Amino acid sequence: MKSAVILLSGGLDSSTLLHYVKTGLNYRELHALTIRYGQKHARETACAVVQARAAGVAEHRQIDIAFFGELVAGVSALTDPDIPVPALAALAPLQLDQPPTYVPNRNMLFLALAAAYAEARGIADVFYGAQAQDRYGYWDCTQEFLDRMNAVMGLNRRQPVILHAPFMLMRKSEILKIGLDLGVNYAETWSCYRGEDKPCGVCPSCVERRAAFSSLHVLDPLAGR
Amino acid sequence: MKSAVILLSGGLDSSTLLHYVKTGLNYRELHALTIRYGQKHARETACAVVQARAAGVAEHRQIDIAFFGELVAGVSALTDPDIPVPALAALAPLQLDQPPTYVPNRNMLFLALAAAYAEARGIADVFYGAQAQDRYGYWDCTQEFLDRMNAVMGLNRRQPVILHAPFMLMRKSEILKIGLDLGVNYAETWSCYRGEDKPCGVCPSCVERRAAFSSLHVLDPLAGR
Repeated sequence: MKSAVILLSGGLDSSTLLHYVKTGLNYRELHALTIRYGQKHARETACAVVQARAAGVAEHRQIDIAFFGELVAGVSALTDPDIPVPALAALAPLQLDQPPTYVPNRNMLFLALAAAYAEARGIADVFYGAQAQDRYGYWDCTQEFLDRMNAVMGLNRRQPVILHAPFMLMRKSEILKIGLDLGVNYAETWSCYRGEDKPCGVCPSCVERRAAFSSLHVLDPLAGR
Repeated sequence: MKSAVILLSGGLDSSTLLHYVKTGLNYRELHALTIRYGQKHARETACAVVQARAAGVAEHRQIDIAFFGELVAGVSALTDPDIPVPALAALAPLQLDQPPTYVPNRNMLFLALAAAYAEARGIADVFYGAQAQDRYGYWDCTQEFLDRMNAVMGLNRRQPVILHAPFMLMRKSEILKIGLDLGVNYAETWSCYRGEDKPCGVCPSCVERRAAFSSLHVLDPLAGR
């Protein structure tokens, strides 16, 4: 039976990925891993619970490493209370390569945890929702990062694990299209980095989400909130 | 000022490394990182506190990820209560390549945390005490693992971090020799994987430690306990 571990934040990309791995890629047994790392938008993890249930996962592990935000204090707008989440429009062109919403080495950390979890269960495939965003980016969401991480994982003598990011080269709207076709309930996903009651509409994550819905002429169920 | 982050378990290798980085390599500002991950020999972390103080570190962070032992349950003798820590002599030749004391993907996880910590502080150098043991080994304590991890780290656009393992190719006795010359207090280090009141003397870690002391004709201060 095809089994996979999936890093599930509860955002648009990873929620779509979960259902895509299940239905599109025919993995029958899913193990979802959700990590609270001190992110301001930890409310996304409540969506992860709903999505995991909807996908009928075999197991949904939730891990709390709130200390992580403190370990990397002073750097990221996603975890540091003193650093405001910027509007995408306010970023200088140079900042688009590494916006203040970047969290130091977060993806390697998450993939290390997911790979350990997979290895312990004899599961060879780990998925994460990395996407080369349309208008900004992070070094740990690139194909090169993924390839080099896999070069490390391939050394494992006990249970080699392969990291997959099938959305890496897709536009946000393409991901959304896949999810809509799969019937993903986007009312139960959360993207806004600010994590307040309603999506702010201007942070990098909100802007990309809105542009994706709008390009498909679909109403974001969160937009009216 | 040369600054470094050091993964400090409180064992013989990492305790020696801490003092070596400080005195031998002239790093003036040290940030030690100690991780409790559900290891049976968590008493090593008390030694880490003593060593960090002795080295006059700028900061000693201690992190608790006890959930990790549970995440990888069923695999490692180091974290699983149901898997006994074997005597080195009881291991079959094939097991020496990946003994039951191996913890799934632990070193990538630890290095990911250490690199995040370093990056957030603008520190370029991370040290860990990996050593290709004399009689057994782990895939994530090899030069190839380190090289490939560094290939990933080199992609970081914000603050590239370099991972160092200066003891990688040394025998245990060479490491010990360095530490003795530096005046490391080995009474305040802990190696035994079983983590009971006294070192068991037969687990892989004890055997290597004993052989190192014995080859230098030095009495292990823990041996008489």
